Amino acid sequence: MSSELLAESITDLQYFLAQCRASVDAELDRLVPAEDIRPESVHQAIRWSLFAGGKRFRPALLLAVGRTFGATTDSLLRTACAFEMIHTYSLIHDDLPSMDDDELRRGRPTCHIRFGEATATLAGDALQALAFQTIADDWQLPAETRVRVVSELARGAGTPVGMVAGQARDLEAESRDVDGDELESIHQLKTGALIVSAARSGAIIAGAEDALNSVTDYAAGLGLLFQITDDLLDVTATAQDLGKTPGKDARAQKATYPALYGVEAARQRAVSVYEQTCHALDGLQQPTTLLQEIARFILQRNA
Amino acid sequence: MSSELLAESITDLQYFLAQCRASVDAELDRLVPAEDIRPESVHQAIRWSLFAGGKRFRPALLLAVGRTFGATTDSLLRTACAFEMIHTYSLIHDDLPSMDDDELRRGRPTCHIRFGEATATLAGDALQALAFQTIADDWQLPAETRVRVVSELARGAGTPVGMVAGQARDLEAESRDVDGDELESIHQLKTGALIVSAARSGAIIAGAEDALNSVTDYAAGLGLLFQITDDLLDVTATAQDLGKTPGKDARAQKATYPALYGVEAARQRAVSVYEQTCHALDGLQQPTTLLQEIARFILQRNA
Repeated sequence: MSSELLAESITDLQYFLAQCRASVDAELDRLVPAEDIRPESVHQAIRWSLFAGGKRFRPALLLAVGRTFGATTDSLLRTACAFEMIHTYSLIHDDLPSMDDDELRRGRPTCHIRFGEATATLAGDALQALAFQTIADDWQLPAETRVRVVSELARGAGTPVGMVAGQARDLEAESRDVDGDELESIHQLKTGALIVSAARSGAIIAGAEDALNSVTDYAAGLGLLFQITDDLLDVTATAQDLGKTPGKDARAQKATYPALYGVEAARQRAVSVYEQTCHALDGLQQPTTLLQEIARFILQRNA
Repeated sequence: MSSELLAESITDLQYFLAQCRASVDAELDRLVPAEDIRPESVHQAIRWSLFAGGKRFRPALLLAVGRTFGATTDSLLRTACAFEMIHTYSLIHDDLPSMDDDELRRGRPTCHIRFGEATATLAGDALQALAFQTIADDWQLPAETRVRVVSELARGAGTPVGMVAGQARDLEAESRDVDGDELESIHQLKTGALIVSAARSGAIIAGAEDALNSVTDYAAGLGLLFQITDDLLDVTATAQDLGKTPGKDARAQKATYPALYGVEAARQRAVSVYEQTCHALDGLQQPTTLLQEIARFILQRNA
């Protein structure tokens, strides 16, 4: 396993992220049924979306938080994969014609375009079940820890305070005007909740109970920062950078930060959220360079 | 709670089932967010489908197995509700236009007809997350038990050996001929897997490790019996009995037992599966009258 490599390079973010991606991809490949296992259609669809070049941001954050508080990569890796499974199922379902109706993601046809709507729906459903099974079956963790992490993941993924709640409120908002507070509260659910659950799960596995409040605040800031820069990229980036059609949110008249505040004010908001995010780490005794670098990376990302 | 009532009436199946339904309905009402909690659309959609007059068969089976091996109703009730949540999410998604495209269930418009496809998709997704959270948060059970039950539920619900696998293979089978073995293997996944997981979870909560193999065989038989009688009802029952349009499977040229073998041979197959199902209980020391009565009830059901 790669825990030693990660430990040596903990201040080198690019190297850390590349190592996370390699470890997570290899473990996901072990956890997900092969393409020739029946029902082949569903397993092919799952792998099509799961191995589409995702950045593995949620797993990396979970690993970074867990490593910061002393957990081994091995003890964190399966839970990290479970969060990526939930994230991927949500992308598959969000892309469906009845939802955001997207035909392209990361430069390739979306799951339902490639495999049909029924198979895409089932692939998402199966991935959600597999995420919870992955944690429940992770014999490296005490049962008490697994139960807490299952609960964290479920709360971050569902309703009323998780990702599904955010997606539902985002759909509701398409038919009416929303103000800045409402926009932030939608994003806190749609993107932030799962990011917060991932970070908290890393801390829980590390046994860092005292740090949970700081980690929660840090991750909430990170989620908001992620969404603001996502909205900015939709306005400013090229299709090649994004692997999807830019400007789509604006054309769909979705509430976005640039649409509400203008590009310049949205950029300033990103900087101020970045500063708050790092500030949340101030009270911790552990070195938090890696977590601060992740926040800066999100602020400065171009894809 | 109703554990004393259940204990007194353990040989009276109708009374037992009515008590299960009342306990499960009351607990589900506590577990699911209220209709006025945001996002209201999703919570209304969840409740529309969850409180649509379902028979609560999986919860009742879990309670019956658990009670047979000495667990209290209180210790079983939340897990029983989690299985009903998974069953209900699967009905919501199966009814979608891209899947079975059903407009009527239990005599009322299906979830997507009433709330739209996007909200129905999200309601199903949220219900699945809530099911796992319900078990993870059930403080009445030791963490080790919760972890095992989460794993049971996930395996029964997902792929490659659970409900989603069965639904996918059922969809694949619509475009080609299937023989009797293939039909049974599809149903074993689509209907049987979750029924088996429910029964096994009842035994696990009761600590009846020695009985797990017998319970598994019993529940597998029950699942098959359930499907054969379901197919027979599709041919022989009236719309009023079923709350849905009968004959739909036959018109869709779905592989069913009556279609493959004829109505009379399918009835004989049901009787023989019933006998095997009861036979699986032979080696147990506990009184299994209740479990045998459940099998007879499925054999003789008319709705």
